[in-house]
Amino acid sequence: MGKRNEQLHLGAFIYYSGHHHFGWRHPESGAEGLFDFKFYKKLAQTAERGKFDMMFLADLLYVRGVEDSASGMLEPVQLLAALSTVTEKLGLTATVSTTYNEPYNVARKFASLDHLSEGRAGWNIVTSQLDVEAFNYGKDKHPEHGLRYEMAREFVEVVTRLWDTWEDHALVIDREAGIFADGSKVKEVEYKGQWYSTKGALNVPRPPQGYPVLIQAGSSGPGQDFAAAFGEVIFTAQQSLEAAQAFYRSVKGKLASYGRSSGSMKIMPGLSPIIGATEEEAQRKYKELQALIPSSMIVGMLSAMLNFDLSGYPVEGQLPEIPDPVEATNGMKSRVQLIMDMARNEQLSIKELGGRLLGARGHMQFVGTYEQLADFMQLWFEEYGCDGFNIMPPVLPGNLDEFVDHVVPILQQRGLFRTEYAGSTLREHLGLARPGLRHFQASHERAKEAAGAADNAWNGLIGQEAVGTAEAGSAG
Amino acid sequence: MGKRNEQLHLGAFIYYSGHHHFGWRHPESGAEGLFDFKFYKKLAQTAERGKFDMMFLADLLYVRGVEDSASGMLEPVQLLAALSTVTEKLGLTATVSTTYNEPYNVARKFASLDHLSEGRAGWNIVTSQLDVEAFNYGKDKHPEHGLRYEMAREFVEVVTRLWDTWEDHALVIDREAGIFADGSKVKEVEYKGQWYSTKGALNVPRPPQGYPVLIQAGSSGPGQDFAAAFGEVIFTAQQSLEAAQAFYRSVKGKLASYGRSSGSMKIMPGLSPIIGATEEEAQRKYKELQALIPSSMIVGMLSAMLNFDLSGYPVEGQLPEIPDPVEATNGMKSRVQLIMDMARNEQLSIKELGGRLLGARGHMQFVGTYEQLADFMQLWFEEYGCDGFNIMPPVLPGNLDEFVDHVVPILQQRGLFRTEYAGSTLREHLGLARPGLRHFQASHERAKEAAGAADNAWNGLIGQEAVGTAEAGSAG
Repeated sequence: MGKRNEQLHLGAFIYYSGHHHFGWRHPESGAEGLFDFKFYKKLAQTAERGKFDMMFLADLLYVRGVEDSASGMLEPVQLLAALSTVTEKLGLTATVSTTYNEPYNVARKFASLDHLSEGRAGWNIVTSQLDVEAFNYGKDKHPEHGLRYEMAREFVEVVTRLWDTWEDHALVIDREAGIFADGSKVKEVEYKGQWYSTKGALNVPRPPQGYPVLIQAGSSGPGQDFAAAFGEVIFTAQQSLEAAQAFYRSVKGKLASYGRSSGSMKIMPGLSPIIGATEEEAQRKYKELQALIPSSMIVGMLSAMLNFDLSGYPVEGQLPEIPDPVEATNGMKSRVQLIMDMARNEQLSIKELGGRLLGARGHMQFVGTYEQLADFMQLWFEEYGCDGFNIMPPVLPGNLDEFVDHVVPILQQRGLFRTEYAGSTLREHLGLARPGLRHFQASHERAKEAAGAADNAWNGLIGQEAVGTAEAGSAG
Repeated sequence: MGKRNEQLHLGAFIYYSGHHHFGWRHPESGAEGLFDFKFYKKLAQTAERGKFDMMFLADLLYVRGVEDSASGMLEPVQLLAALSTVTEKLGLTATVSTTYNEPYNVARKFASLDHLSEGRAGWNIVTSQLDVEAFNYGKDKHPEHGLRYEMAREFVEVVTRLWDTWEDHALVIDREAGIFADGSKVKEVEYKGQWYSTKGALNVPRPPQGYPVLIQAGSSGPGQDFAAAFGEVIFTAQQSLEAAQAFYRSVKGKLASYGRSSGSMKIMPGLSPIIGATEEEAQRKYKELQALIPSSMIVGMLSAMLNFDLSGYPVEGQLPEIPDPVEATNGMKSRVQLIMDMARNEQLSIKELGGRLLGARGHMQFVGTYEQLADFMQLWFEEYGCDGFNIMPPVLPGNLDEFVDHVVPILQQRGLFRTEYAGSTLREHLGLARPGLRHFQASHERAKEAAGAADNAWNGLIGQEAVGTAEAGSAG
């Protein structure tokens, strides 16, 4: 154990065949396996070999440009169900959008995964992000982010209530007496919200974990409030220890008004490691990766990311001032702000900025030795910049093996990371309590009584920012 | 080979811990495992050992009475994804409702399962059945069955078009040239229907089978027309060879007007075997099963099934005339008619009828020796009453093992059933061609040109019957 008397947590964030946008072009990428179970089986077993808390799958409800980008994703919760059969301890978590699903289906999806995996499921709650996603579902546009936010809050309320419709130990299976389940332990919920209603019981008994672990990725003000109400794991993008500490303090500071302890939430920034035995090796790998980016594409992709045409600006020059994006786009505010901050703080040219963003989508990219990365992680953890990291290998599967083989042992030697799983559920790995019935309702009521103004504060924030984006861990 | 110069097809229909309503009370039922992967793993591996074409999972979007009935179901497509990892050849099929899902999500769900299983997926298309299902999704009532039917037709149209948005071999993955996919082979679909619209490409490449196998369960007139348009496997409930032959002729007779051959559809009635080495053993097993039914419950359950209060009628007496149910209930017509026909034809008392229905939900219940069952199956198959059977063991897992160990070998000895899988996809097992792009659109257009009146006939039938019910294989 280090200074914190607890250990850090690790997620293996799987995104196409690597987080680097052009990582699929790397000779060692597994791009041919993107729709093949064997590719994911190897990744999950590597993460479990490294004693990771969990594997995390992103989700996007559209096809991005297929010619130059790895595109398409298997339905992630199905994929996790398949992976539950080839792993024993690893947490299995995925993004599912509240905007393009029914609460009953989502409650059932994660309850089923939690049963199949015997308590290893987690749901990354997002509201999706783009109009092109709306088009696939027969809508003209993606709902504006304030509305999505409001809807998501109700959605999660319905889902957690449905998980509670079966009490623990409701199944009796008394053949002689002819009693399958204790009827007094299976109750209908009747919920009428502004956006979602439900009346009935879920068709799956209460998940082994009570609730599958609730994950959330919003970093902005209202995102933090949603996180404080529901989030148990928070994915975030942070570019400096100071910013990470400020975020950590801010989100954890809101927990008390919801009746929650600081330990009931684990904050895990994204971290993309480009590492080697020596600094030279790491730098060489970084250059190899950056060389995969067609320079002709940087301006176009950066323009798309910022929703601002940069084609008239010199690529070696600085980024111009980008107009306040909240008016122009939908839910992209914190991403654009982060990009502008990064460009200014590090004096990056348009070309350099584009390269950085295509490398890790706004997350921390670390280039250095295995020891240096361990030092970096230890510092952030011990100085309360985070409770762990969501590891985003630039090229998969190889860079996950490299992290497991070279960095995990150092963290273990320092007592910062487990050498064996102590428990068997994801909640146990993360040190999160198993929720009782109506966990969040109760905490909301406590919050109301204690703070009085909590709900007003909440309402005041609606309309400013999305809960999270479909690219979990991105700065949405 | 027998008289037909082809072999019959077998499905292993998994429904709770057995199809007998009180089969869960049987000492050998696996009721404790209903939410445990190991229970299903054993069943799937048994079906594969028996060289079954496929395993079939029903789905219900509500909880039936939990105190005396096995209740709750894991999300079936996730479960199949998990089972794909512990089987190699077995087809993996499940019910998914068109009424409570989005076409984009369903297209993706089955495309993902088809990739994970390398071409073994099948979708049983149903529209769900009951108001209690609607309540779970925030609706006041289940849509009336004509409307559901119309919606389902559009739903399937959208799903098949989405499967076609990626042509075969669209993935290129040329690292040097930086080309992930051939952009000319990934096209957006733009579909604006009355009920569903979509604009974009699916986020999963074309399924290995082109389309996962499309399964359908409607037996009535409009159900047969839907089947003739889209159905490749038809589950049906038939109580006599004559009725089965009439159904077979009727549905297959409609195929030509859709430009389809007779072999492009496999008709598989449900069959619940209660079998033994001797007739005495089979009869003893039947009595054991019937003894599990609490006699106090027969009247209530039969009343619920018929939507008609039978409590004033003597249980030893005949069933009274039940009023035309189409007005009173929603989509239950053919089920109620089947029940009334069964009671009249076999002169059953209310008690006997209830016992029969709780045994196999209106499907053929066969009581006899292994040889007698093989004779029965051979007769129905060779006399064109069917192309195979969907086997509905009354108690699971044991009765599936029994069928595989004792009946399959007889069918194999007679040349009626495969001794080894010849292909590796479900289409190959079933002898169904792999569809090209826009398979159904093309056949619809052919049908229009050829018949002219096909669409009018279709429209005239709308409003009379549902596509199918959530209990696939039931007489809906």
